[in-house]
This record gives sequence, C-alpha cells and structure tokens, in this order.
Amino acid sequence: MTRRAERDAGTSVTSKVLALLEAFTPDATDLSLSELARRSGVSLATAHRRAAELVEWGALERDAAGRYRVGLRLWEVAALAPRGLGLRDAAMPFLEDLYEVTHENVQLAVREGLEVVFVERIAGRDAVPVWTRVGGRFALHATGVGLVLLANAPAAVQEEVLGSPLQSYTEKTVSDPVRLRRVLAEVRKLGYAVSDGQVTIDALSVGAPVHAADGSVAAAVSLVVRADGAQPGSLAPLVMAAARGIHRSLSGGATRVFPSGRIRR
Amino acid sequence: MTRRAERDAGTSVTSKVLALLEAFTPDATDLSLSELARRSGVSLATAHRRAAELVEWGALERDAAGRYRVGLRLWEVAALAPRGLGLRDAAMPFLEDLYEVTHENVQLAVREGLEVVFVERIAGRDAVPVWTRVGGRFALHATGVGLVLLANAPAAVQEEVLGSPLQSYTEKTVSDPVRLRRVLAEVRKLGYAVSDGQVTIDALSVGAPVHAADGSVAAAVSLVVRADGAQPGSLAPLVMAAARGIHRSLSGGATRVFPSGRIRR
Repeated sequence: MTRRAERDAGTSVTSKVLALLEAFTPDATDLSLSELARRSGVSLATAHRRAAELVEWGALERDAAGRYRVGLRLWEVAALAPRGLGLRDAAMPFLEDLYEVTHENVQLAVREGLEVVFVERIAGRDAVPVWTRVGGRFALHATGVGLVLLANAPAAVQEEVLGSPLQSYTEKTVSDPVRLRRVLAEVRKLGYAVSDGQVTIDALSVGAPVHAADGSVAAAVSLVVRADGAQPGSLAPLVMAAARGIHRSLSGGATRVFPSGRIRR
Repeated sequence: MTRRAERDAGTSVTSKVLALLEAFTPDATDLSLSELARRSGVSLATAHRRAAELVEWGALERDAAGRYRVGLRLWEVAALAPRGLGLRDAAMPFLEDLYEVTHENVQLAVREGLEVVFVERIAGRDAVPVWTRVGGRFALHATGVGLVLLANAPAAVQEEVLGSPLQSYTEKTVSDPVRLRRVLAEVRKLGYAVSDGQVTIDALSVGAPVHAADGSVAAAVSLVVRADGAQPGSLAPLVMAAARGIHRSLSGGATRVFPSGRIRR
C-alpha cells in the first residue's frame, strides 16, 4: 500500500467510525446491526467489523438482545469536554442555588454553530414544563439562553441566523430579522435576555451570559417560569448573579474542592 | 489494496482514532499536538491527520492557543449512552428530592468492569467533602455505591475483586477478603450498604441498589454524610425509596414529561 493509499483508506475509516457514532440520536438510542449500517451509510460487513472494535474499546455496548447503544466508556471520555461536564461541574453549585431559591426550571447552555446545546437542566417538579434535554439542541433565536448566546456571537454567526428563515414556535416568537436585531441590541445593553412565550406560550425565560476567563461569552444560564404573572425584572438579578458566580468558578480554579489527583481512571 | 489489507489498515486506523480520544484524562483535558501524539502512541503526522478529522467532525475542539480538547459534539453523542445521561435523566428528580430533604452529598454510580463510575453527584455545599467527579472512577470495595454494586455483581466479578489486593484507604477499609465476603452477604440481606469511614475517615455513605426493568442491578444511589453522629438506619429508608423511584422511572416510561419528538438535533 502506498503512503497515499494508506492515508486515503485512513480518512475513509475515520469517517466510517464517526458515522457509526452519529447513527445514534435521541429517537434511536439502541440499534440493531442492520439499522446501524443503514443509518451510518456503510455496508453490513463494515458496520459489523467497526462496531466490534468500538464495542471492544467501550465506545459502544450491546444490550441483552444484542442491540448496539452508546457505551459508558465514550461517555467517560466525553465527560472531559470542557464545554460539557467541565462547564457543568463549575456551574452546578450556582444552578443548585438558583433552583433552591426559586424551584423553577434552571438551564445551562452553550452555542454550537447556529444552535443552542443544553448542558444542564434542573427541572422544578411543579414548574412549567419545558422541552429541553441535556445534550439536546434548539434554535438560537427563541429561548432565553439562545438570545443571550446569539446576541454575543460573532457578527458572522448573527448575520447567518438573521439571514435564514426564523421558525415561529408561537405567535410571540420574534421571527422578523429587523425586530430580532433590535432585540439582540437590547440583550447586549441590559446584560440579560427575556423570552416571553416565544417557545411555548405559557413559559417565560430570563437568560444571562456566562463569561469565560478571557471575557468571551462561554455559556448562558436561564430560569424558565410560568409566563403568567412572571416578573422578569426581579428574576434577572438572580440569573445574572448565578452567571457571575459561574464566571468566577471558571476563572478562579482556587476553589477546586476535589483534588484531581485522588480521582482514579 | 486487497480486501485483507484494507481490513487490517481499517483496524489500525480505528484503534488510532480511539487512542487519540483515550489520550485525554482528568489530569490532561487539553493537549498540544505533540502531547496528543505521545500519549496516544502514534506519530506526529498521524496525530495531526486524524486529529484534524476529529476536529472537523467535532469530536475534538481546539482552543484559542491551538491546544486540543474533547469536543462538544462527542459529548452530545455520548449523552445518549443509556448508562450515562440516560440513567441520570431518569434518576435526577429522585436525587434532587434526596438532596432537598438532607442537604447532604447524593451520588449515582454504575459498575464498569472492576470499578465504580460516578454518573451523577449533587454536593451539599456544607456537607462533608467527597472525592468524586462525574465520569470519575473508584474501587468497588470501599464506597457505599461500590459495595452495593459489588454485592450484586456476577460471581466471577466478585471473585476477581476478592482475589486481588484490596487497597486500604483508611484503617476502616475492609481489605480482608474473608471479611469483605461477609459484608457483601450482609448488603444483599439488608438491601443496602454502609461504608463507615472506609474511604475517608470523616464520611459515612449509605448506598442502595437501583434495579433495571429486568430485575438486574443497573446502578446504585447513595447519601454521603459526616460520619460523626450519622444514623445509617434512618438514612437507609430514604436512599432505598429513591432507588425504588429510579427503578420505576427506568421501568415505566409512562411519566416521560418531555416528548422526544419536540427535541431537535
């Protein structure tokens, strides 16, 4: 095999391995071999061979019925993603405080491309139902966290969102780009975002930016409450205080309670 | 390239891709290219080529300084692991309840091979410090969750642990296999485990098994409190009730609040 052929084969194998991982979605968390092959666009033989390697390493697991699912080992490695559990660990005490004083829904999210990815949520049992899932995605222009992340995104990202069709989830969703541009300016000026009935008509969300040590906006935190009777002006200081606490925790490092040397892998 | 050569090249590429992921550990969450190559045992050229593919897909990300870290996209896929965030989502309301009524440390863990992997923790701010990290590992024979998981593990797993040297974390750690065997029998009889000063001398943990729908033990939940004055007999019913709630949530599916159809990916 020439070096070139070797390289090309490698590229194709890497993409097939990644395609196998990509076959799993929230609606399809366990797959038969043929489903796995079909969804990842590889032959049955290739799926069988690569899946066996992934199972051996622990990136995939097989259940009692022989169906494939994402493995705990992959989850352990992924837990090291600074924007996933790393961020979540720094934020958790502040999210818990927010939850304890409000018993409402508390959310933590980051921007990935043109969407929000939810990194953590604490759902009040009697709070207004919200449709988020840890690891799930949503559009940037509707939710409290999304508006915060969009308002602080690079200009190119904002232009791309403003230039695309903006889905209306309710009659209150701001789907007109001219109005949305004004909303985003207001979010930057106030330092927080209010999404009032813009995702579901009965929910109001107040989001605030979490700054990284370098001053960039790394994440957004929000409270989601029943829209009826909500007072965003009183919620905003709470959410902003939590965001500042998370910023300190991300920047400091001095308050690390659990010396990592004691954790085995 | 022959089919055989293609297959062999594929195997080696898959293992190199996985080795790159494996290079990241809790002590090394961001790596330069040369660190990445050294830790994964591949050449600089291979690391460069494969890492570029992983970055393109989102399994790795590069920070402002060009260092590699685990990417959010990998975390999103890994969030679909039934034994990771899947379990955690089912358990979270019950863990929150445990936390609210005790303000102590609440932990959720599964067994992976001969170790415990912590899937969730809620740390009481004024509670006794514990050395766990979500995604982190620990030995099976010392913690409350570990004793529960070991007591309910297949006989072969128990024999392997009992036949290996058992590390003493404190003078109270049960490191004698004969005594440990009796402890495990007691755990199965009582339906819960008590680890009193066996990991750190000032902490006491009460763990209970979480049964899957098929009756097997899928996970363990625990409360970790200050050992001084702790009353394991009063804590056990609380922990066991939470474990039963999680079991119902894992078995039922009827109480799913967030219709997955509404979640975009």
